[in-house]
Amino acid sequence: MTESSEIINTGLRGVPVASTRICLVDGQNAKLIYRGYNIIDLAQNATFEEVVHLLLFEHLPAVDELDYMKQRLAEECAIADEIITALKTRPADASPMDILQACVPMLANHDPEATNLSAEKASDTAIRLIAKFPTIMAAWHRIRNGREPVSPDPSLGHAENFLYMITGNRPDAEVGRFMDVCLVLHAEHAFNASTFSARQVSSSRSHMYAAVAAAVGSLSGELHGGANARVMQMLLEIGSEDAVEQYVESRLNSGGKVMGMGHPVYKTGDPRAAILGPMSKKMGERVNNTKWYELSEAVRKNTQEVFMRLKGTEIYPNVDFYSATVYYAMGIPVDMFTPVFAIARVSGWCAHVIEEQFAGAAPKPVLYRPASEYVGEYCGPEECAFLPMEERQ
Amino acid sequence: MTESSEIINTGLRGVPVASTRICLVDGQNAKLIYRGYNIIDLAQNATFEEVVHLLLFEHLPAVDELDYMKQRLAEECAIADEIITALKTRPADASPMDILQACVPMLANHDPEATNLSAEKASDTAIRLIAKFPTIMAAWHRIRNGREPVSPDPSLGHAENFLYMITGNRPDAEVGRFMDVCLVLHAEHAFNASTFSARQVSSSRSHMYAAVAAAVGSLSGELHGGANARVMQMLLEIGSEDAVEQYVESRLNSGGKVMGMGHPVYKTGDPRAAILGPMSKKMGERVNNTKWYELSEAVRKNTQEVFMRLKGTEIYPNVDFYSATVYYAMGIPVDMFTPVFAIARVSGWCAHVIEEQFAGAAPKPVLYRPASEYVGEYCGPEECAFLPMEERQ
Repeated sequence: MTESSEIINTGLRGVPVASTRICLVDGQNAKLIYRGYNIIDLAQNATFEEVVHLLLFEHLPAVDELDYMKQRLAEECAIADEIITALKTRPADASPMDILQACVPMLANHDPEATNLSAEKASDTAIRLIAKFPTIMAAWHRIRNGREPVSPDPSLGHAENFLYMITGNRPDAEVGRFMDVCLVLHAEHAFNASTFSARQVSSSRSHMYAAVAAAVGSLSGELHGGANARVMQMLLEIGSEDAVEQYVESRLNSGGKVMGMGHPVYKTGDPRAAILGPMSKKMGERVNNTKWYELSEAVRKNTQEVFMRLKGTEIYPNVDFYSATVYYAMGIPVDMFTPVFAIARVSGWCAHVIEEQFAGAAPKPVLYRPASEYVGEYCGPEECAFLPMEERQ
Repeated sequence: MTESSEIINTGLRGVPVASTRICLVDGQNAKLIYRGYNIIDLAQNATFEEVVHLLLFEHLPAVDELDYMKQRLAEECAIADEIITALKTRPADASPMDILQACVPMLANHDPEATNLSAEKASDTAIRLIAKFPTIMAAWHRIRNGREPVSPDPSLGHAENFLYMITGNRPDAEVGRFMDVCLVLHAEHAFNASTFSARQVSSSRSHMYAAVAAAVGSLSGELHGGANARVMQMLLEIGSEDAVEQYVESRLNSGGKVMGMGHPVYKTGDPRAAILGPMSKKMGERVNNTKWYELSEAVRKNTQEVFMRLKGTEIYPNVDFYSATVYYAMGIPVDMFTPVFAIARVSGWCAHVIEEQFAGAAPKPVLYRPASEYVGEYCGPEECAFLPMEERQ
């Protein structure tokens, strides 16, 4: 291997891929905008169903539009019995994200128009996918525990229905709204890794199910959607406040990270954490256990102090930091945290697939086909001569 | 929508993503190189198993290394009974590529070390995936026809085994070798769309199954792996040589394309087509039906003439053009053509995932997180004011 064979990969950081009308992540000003609307306004005032409408149809719904969206989500939230049967073949210790990635292409099997790539069909497919994500994950959680899935209750809101199907109990209004706000906050985030995957897969004119399944795969990684589960695992590992200082010192002194702290884009704070922090406290109070919220606050403060001492800069909690303790207090299993992220983000993925396929300057989507530099100088500047097997070393 | 809201998307054409030691696509010189070796040498002299070793381990195998590779592929080619049971829940008209995309994450459910992201495990996972792709697709083809899957025969080569499992008959040596060469030719092609998807998904430290499932989704699109099936559909639609001229004229005069003709990178000919053209002729002769080969030659010549007249430049058949008629003469159903592509390309995907995760200049993979430009001026330069639903129009 020669010097020139070193592999360079910058992860396309700062390289613009496309323009988009869907989302602005303004890291300098700690702002997140969905189609013109500030995330803080949406989290305080809008439901997930309204945000789905905003993302797919470019405006917040009027009363009749929201009624129609709710009706379509209710009509589409059930999954085929054959998918339930397929889920029952899966081993109980399977990762829920692997289960979800397997189920999404199966949904295409039951949509006779899956390969209809018209714009009209695209928004309908989006609604089908968004409607079915909570059902799939809740069904899997019941099945792996040897219980029958709970059928969705069309009278409940999207967030409430997920909590109902996973626990078997209808949540009260405040907890249902907390989950609703979590879905609003996680719905969209511009060209993050999973969304980029969805757009990229759809650029070959694959159908939306194929693109969304790819995005589920991307989200499952620990550098992306897997982070919220890892925050909770960290808190469980630390266990008590007196162990925080040693944990944080040892992580940061060895060049490691504290999960959920810091963000590649938000340098002055993640606006979503500002909503989720107080929610974590309230959710802890509701279940008479604020231990995990308080422990997370100790980790945050300690990390901020040590980071300032070591690096001379501020560091802030990101969206994963407090969502972990919110979900934990709601009784959601830790390995379902990333699926909750997916249940929200599927709305953004679908909006981006629609933009990729129908809103481009060109009449058809442009296949993503980047360049690469070949540095495989195996036999020097010449091609390798093919040797019979017996002569190979 | 203002003027500035136009969506720009260049598909990253010409934008270098990374350097790579795996593959050179030299469009100007019509050359394809896998890790130093010219594709023509490999197609003439090497088996798919040798190419898998080359892609995964960076050198052609010596005798004992090839023996070990064959042994591992034979050990891993069976799929879990639970996956067969899951396949039996799928509707018979399901797209084989959707079935494949669903099965890949299911394989992770049966690999207790799926989330072990060490380099050693990565090459083992790659071998598992490569070994199982033909088994999955052949099993699905049998099941959808109401037949029991044929178990893989560990004494057969990889290509022969696929033909055996799909047809139930052991192919003769020449046909087996033709399929073997097809797999060699389709194994790898640098940063094509599906490979880019696999690398991109793995960059969040998702496991290899998640990344490969994403790549299957990308390959399924008609602008990528779906093209070989579309070539055959075109030939079946044209039907006879006397209809060629009108078909080609009408396609090219209306700004359309002739499937399988032309390539975004190979401007002086696709080296793979030079191998596949004669193979298509021989395969037709073997089954006493050269009609589809001859029809494809008429389409090629006619397209080249019309293209020269209209555009003043040459156009050449690509890899999909002749592989379509080769597979058809082998008796492979048209909707299994793209899965055959996947059975070959999974080797390249795995090599790229390994490079992405372990061969970077940085010690850890860099999450692909490109930039985008927000042009969503919904309410002018200001954010939109949140209105109560009753006031929305």
